[in-house]
Amino acid sequence: MLGIKEIASYIPDKKISNYDKKEQFELDDDFIENKIGVKTHSIKEQGEKASDLCVKAFENLIQKIGLNKETIDCCVVVTQNPDYNIPHTSAIVHGKLELSQDCACFDISLGCSGYVYGLSNIISFMKSNGLKNGLLFTADPYSEIVDSEDKNTALLFGDGATVTYISEAGIYMPKGFSFGTNGEHYKELLCKDKLYMNGRAVFNFTATTIPKHIQQLLEKNGLEDKDVDKYVLHQGSKYIVDTIRKRLKIDENKVPFDMYEYGNTISSSIPIILEKEMKNSDNKRFVISGFGVGLSWGSAIIEKI
Amino acid sequence: MLGIKEIASYIPDKKISNYDKKEQFELDDDFIENKIGVKTHSIKEQGEKASDLCVKAFENLIQKIGLNKETIDCCVVVTQNPDYNIPHTSAIVHGKLELSQDCACFDISLGCSGYVYGLSNIISFMKSNGLKNGLLFTADPYSEIVDSEDKNTALLFGDGATVTYISEAGIYMPKGFSFGTNGEHYKELLCKDKLYMNGRAVFNFTATTIPKHIQQLLEKNGLEDKDVDKYVLHQGSKYIVDTIRKRLKIDENKVPFDMYEYGNTISSSIPIILEKEMKNSDNKRFVISGFGVGLSWGSAIIEKI
Repeated sequence: MLGIKEIASYIPDKKISNYDKKEQFELDDDFIENKIGVKTHSIKEQGEKASDLCVKAFENLIQKIGLNKETIDCCVVVTQNPDYNIPHTSAIVHGKLELSQDCACFDISLGCSGYVYGLSNIISFMKSNGLKNGLLFTADPYSEIVDSEDKNTALLFGDGATVTYISEAGIYMPKGFSFGTNGEHYKELLCKDKLYMNGRAVFNFTATTIPKHIQQLLEKNGLEDKDVDKYVLHQGSKYIVDTIRKRLKIDENKVPFDMYEYGNTISSSIPIILEKEMKNSDNKRFVISGFGVGLSWGSAIIEKI
Repeated sequence: MLGIKEIASYIPDKKISNYDKKEQFELDDDFIENKIGVKTHSIKEQGEKASDLCVKAFENLIQKIGLNKETIDCCVVVTQNPDYNIPHTSAIVHGKLELSQDCACFDISLGCSGYVYGLSNIISFMKSNGLKNGLLFTADPYSEIVDSEDKNTALLFGDGATVTYISEAGIYMPKGFSFGTNGEHYKELLCKDKLYMNGRAVFNFTATTIPKHIQQLLEKNGLEDKDVDKYVLHQGSKYIVDTIRKRLKIDENKVPFDMYEYGNTISSSIPIILEKEMKNSDNKRFVISGFGVGLSWGSAIIEKI
């Protein structure tokens, strides 16, 4: 059955420290460490594009597992900062990785809910088309669109990319997907030339919608908190992760927080954490939940076989 | 079983005539009528965006069928000219149509193969997530990116949008999808600020790859030419549609050509024709094939129940 065989990430070594911006934005350490939860955020090299980050994540994948590129028959990129709008970035990645011509490629445009959607999308697409080996990339280099003078966004976002290898020899099975949209409020997170974010509106939406949504996900799948080993939430900020956790009354140890050193990597935030947590064989069942741009949200269960 | 229940299109009334450009580009009537096959191309109002075209297509859909918007649980937009890169256009359409919060929305970034991919994508996504009523939009307003001084592109493309209503009461069933990519040549169709197209390279790719691909599609599905009522090919140009048809030795009556009055509408070209051809109850089996940007291609069979 198609499932997640392996995940690999790429986070640029180059970092920008938020402590260096304390004066500019009148910040204190408590804000940096406990409110946003981003001490440094990662930044790609100038000139690097989404496809380059995907290729680097792929290089890290083949360090971990043997993989015959010729067998890849599906390649999906989740991004809202593509190399170009035409063509899709997955075609560029396809070219750079020299994949087979019999490979289906498409991009999915979604933000922070993108990994959850992407996982459902690639697996269902592969299943119905009899495909065997897929690559689901996430790469959303927000450094391209963030205004470094805008306190709402300049401290938060980090560049990064991930690749999830989907195969019939999958070890982790996603299931029970659930999705939602509130398009009425799409303007709260919008990019014309530079990114605009109404932080308060996005926070309020998340804090009211997501705990309820996760609760319903558990109920629909006949699960209780005790059945879940880890909740891997989109790392929007420390404050939002803490708020969701507290509203759901979940033990802190079950909710990894991991963005101190690289920031909010949009659709890459969940797979970056999953990669780490899947190394721990005690983690047999995950809840994943992504939320943000759209406004959009998606959650699912991932179970170890 | 999930299938196509209805298709509706929107093609702007406003047209630009290629006969008016004969002097500027040194054209003769034969070139206009038999080579590109575009006499006039449709153009949206200035300021209109992809989401506006989608809404107009949707208005045409509800003129045709009764539809309770509350029941829509999936909304997908295929575009490479989104309203913005952030958020996805499907969220904006979701907001404008006031769809339910329990509606999954995502964009697929693909060009001329986008409808074929989109069809497979939305149906497989809906099926695996138990969704019942979906809207697949295509809208790629190339007038936003075409350089009116560039002969390679200024005569060819038209604005338009379509919506395909997917439901369990579907009448036409897509099956036997087949996809391919040649990312090595992605630069032949590329948009930085304005669209660049290497017409010859795209033509050569299409003329060599697509006839073989369609032939293989028929063989894989145990079909011969006599089993197919209509071949609905992406309307790249008259010359390319004619070339594919001749190489496949298909009767001219089985290959609708329909872009004289509105031009190449990218991912909308196939559903615009399908909408018309599905009105003819003699058309029980279609082959559809899209090809272009990426370079990317996709084909499928559509059968009437």
